[in-house]
Amino acid sequence: MSDTVQALGDRKGCGPLIPPLSIAQRPLRQQVFERVRAAGQIARVQVAKDLSVSPASVTTLTSDLIDSGLLEEIAAPREAEAARGRPAVLLGVRPAAHLVAGIKLSDRENSAVVVDFAGNLLAGEALPRRPGALTLRELLDATETLLDRVCAAAGIARGDLSAVGLGVPGFVDSHAGTVHWSPVLADRQVPLAAAASARLGQPVEIDNDANLVTLAELWFGAGRKRGDFAVVTIEHGLGMGFVLNHRIYRGSQGLGMELGHTKVQLDGALCRCGQRGCLEAYVADYALVREAQTALNWTHGESGPTGVLLESLFDHAKAGNRAARSIFHRAGRYLALGLANVVNIFDPELIILSGERMRYDYLYAKETMAEMQAMVLNTGRPMPKVQIHAWGDLLWAHGAAALALSTLTETLVGPMREMAAQ
Amino acid sequence: MSDTVQALGDRKGCGPLIPPLSIAQRPLRQQVFERVRAAGQIARVQVAKDLSVSPASVTTLTSDLIDSGLLEEIAAPREAEAARGRPAVLLGVRPAAHLVAGIKLSDRENSAVVVDFAGNLLAGEALPRRPGALTLRELLDATETLLDRVCAAAGIARGDLSAVGLGVPGFVDSHAGTVHWSPVLADRQVPLAAAASARLGQPVEIDNDANLVTLAELWFGAGRKRGDFAVVTIEHGLGMGFVLNHRIYRGSQGLGMELGHTKVQLDGALCRCGQRGCLEAYVADYALVREAQTALNWTHGESGPTGVLLESLFDHAKAGNRAARSIFHRAGRYLALGLANVVNIFDPELIILSGERMRYDYLYAKETMAEMQAMVLNTGRPMPKVQIHAWGDLLWAHGAAALALSTLTETLVGPMREMAAQ
Repeated sequence: MSDTVQALGDRKGCGPLIPPLSIAQRPLRQQVFERVRAAGQIARVQVAKDLSVSPASVTTLTSDLIDSGLLEEIAAPREAEAARGRPAVLLGVRPAAHLVAGIKLSDRENSAVVVDFAGNLLAGEALPRRPGALTLRELLDATETLLDRVCAAAGIARGDLSAVGLGVPGFVDSHAGTVHWSPVLADRQVPLAAAASARLGQPVEIDNDANLVTLAELWFGAGRKRGDFAVVTIEHGLGMGFVLNHRIYRGSQGLGMELGHTKVQLDGALCRCGQRGCLEAYVADYALVREAQTALNWTHGESGPTGVLLESLFDHAKAGNRAARSIFHRAGRYLALGLANVVNIFDPELIILSGERMRYDYLYAKETMAEMQAMVLNTGRPMPKVQIHAWGDLLWAHGAAALALSTLTETLVGPMREMAAQ
Repeated sequence: MSDTVQALGDRKGCGPLIPPLSIAQRPLRQQVFERVRAAGQIARVQVAKDLSVSPASVTTLTSDLIDSGLLEEIAAPREAEAARGRPAVLLGVRPAAHLVAGIKLSDRENSAVVVDFAGNLLAGEALPRRPGALTLRELLDATETLLDRVCAAAGIARGDLSAVGLGVPGFVDSHAGTVHWSPVLADRQVPLAAAASARLGQPVEIDNDANLVTLAELWFGAGRKRGDFAVVTIEHGLGMGFVLNHRIYRGSQGLGMELGHTKVQLDGALCRCGQRGCLEAYVADYALVREAQTALNWTHGESGPTGVLLESLFDHAKAGNRAARSIFHRAGRYLALGLANVVNIFDPELIILSGERMRYDYLYAKETMAEMQAMVLNTGRPMPKVQIHAWGDLLWAHGAAALALSTLTETLVGPMREMAAQ
């Protein structure tokens, strides 16, 4: 083999000190816990079956998890008992074991929830905000105010929480806890996790919007039935999350899955990232409003926040305005192209479309789906299922809570616990 | 959560009867074997460290693997002994445990190798062929002839082999053993694995070119040092393979990673798959030759197989012909776009560019790499390494042998063995 090596820059100063453990290295104890968590209620024998391990190992590990107060036994419903002829005992996560908060910061509104260890909602709060980037101090002020408010609503003290999950839009390195860039932050390369943790007096995990929705699906939605799926979010930008074997896949540096910035045209439309031809520059809010400003002569007549302009554009399209229709039509075609690329690359069983814009039904109109099918490589395989989940804002915060639960689980039952014990 | 479900076709008649076991379910015994295999020679204590398990478990499992004749102890080199003050014993795969053959069928030439269980080459043979699609019978005839020839060269009988790996270009469902479409086969939906197995009297595994190269890298190349990397191949088409946690990622139906058919322009250039705007339609052989036929007025002056035409185009470009240069330049820009998309989606540590066309250095010229960097989302992260591996034909066959070894390993030490034992 002849090797011509061309290194494009060095990997310096970015590697985490403790590399994230690979999937195969997840301890069985954690796998057992996660299987129970995903199932909601499940019998030990089923856990053993699902994980291809002996029932004896499962019994040992679940006893340990019950002793630690993380799992609990639940009597099966009476019908099940009667049908099987003996009382069945199911396992479930013990809700009271821990409380966590999830907070989602966005350009328009900040929202927060408190949930228990089983993910049940205890309280939710939302506060509108003036759009624009904040300094780190302003952002932490807003976060602290909101957190205190949601804790009050849940009737708990801040100190009762075991962890806080914090979601922001933009490019976030969840593992390092750094925000490389976000529309809600004036600065770049902000060590947000550490700063928020110091301010709130809690362990804080951060991540971007798309991963929050994906985590929410993994913990409370589609993930209860499947271990592998893709999530595509359309909001102000276009995001993607991918669940592989019950875990979010993040790439080697936690910065993968930037579907919105894959190029779909060489030297194409200008994206807010500064590059050209990104998928997002054809599909996201600002792309549509930009086109509307040209063809509908809006520069004089209409102005206002993107949401209002988009609403007006949607009204024009419904009223039959051809330029407005053409704008939505093209966005739909590019979305179809992006989804077809996801299928050609990942061959997923399921794609979930999520985000506020999902109520503009042009985005998943019949023609869009037909176009997507036409752009998926014809190999004779059936098309993946496409589901539309129109999440509300509090449910994004629920995703942030799932992030906190996820890390907490790692600490309590995962490799991080084993490392701490060594 | 409101769910509007839009199902695009049903998943019927395609699911494998036994679903491929997920990464987490790989038995520790298999993980131990694979760690030794990847390392070449390794001490037990290092295996335990790498897998985050106790040295005692590793000792138990390796004793079992040694008793089964799959691993063997190797005395460490004398210097190491002296340095450590006591004789070190390393583990390695026992080469004589099994022999396998790997065969790569292509449009131009068929090649085959015989390797031992440690992957050492015993013999290699290549036979040129007339281009074009074959009937299944013709293809099996060619395969059998070649197999007998390479066995003779290795001084073994066909029955001495434990498995055969068979690679063809096109859309291959490796798990089901079916070729959906291939340029070397006249028919579609051919159950090639079963047909070849019946003809050769050996277990036969099939896969596509890109996965063969990726497997070869995983077993004998980059995989010795890393568990995660991407491979992009440029030959008659453009392929991709992705290794995640020491395994090839294939998608839910084994048909993912079709980077060549991701769309990079809506309604763009016509691809040989029949769709428009595929990356391959801008980068692969036929795309370049198609353009050359227009601008260099070749329809009258020159004709012949793609390889010859491409060589002539390359000569024209080197001689300064502007149209020829522009053709290579555009192909290079589109390759840069495709690689940038791989980085934006997978965030890999390493991308290996492989395939015969790699000797046309325009493909990885400085400008191409600079353009790629310009199209990768600017998050402050360092760029992944890009390595150029110009493999010869026999080494593709070596990849087919790795496929056979891979399946054989599953049977001998993996979940398939545990299932058989139940």
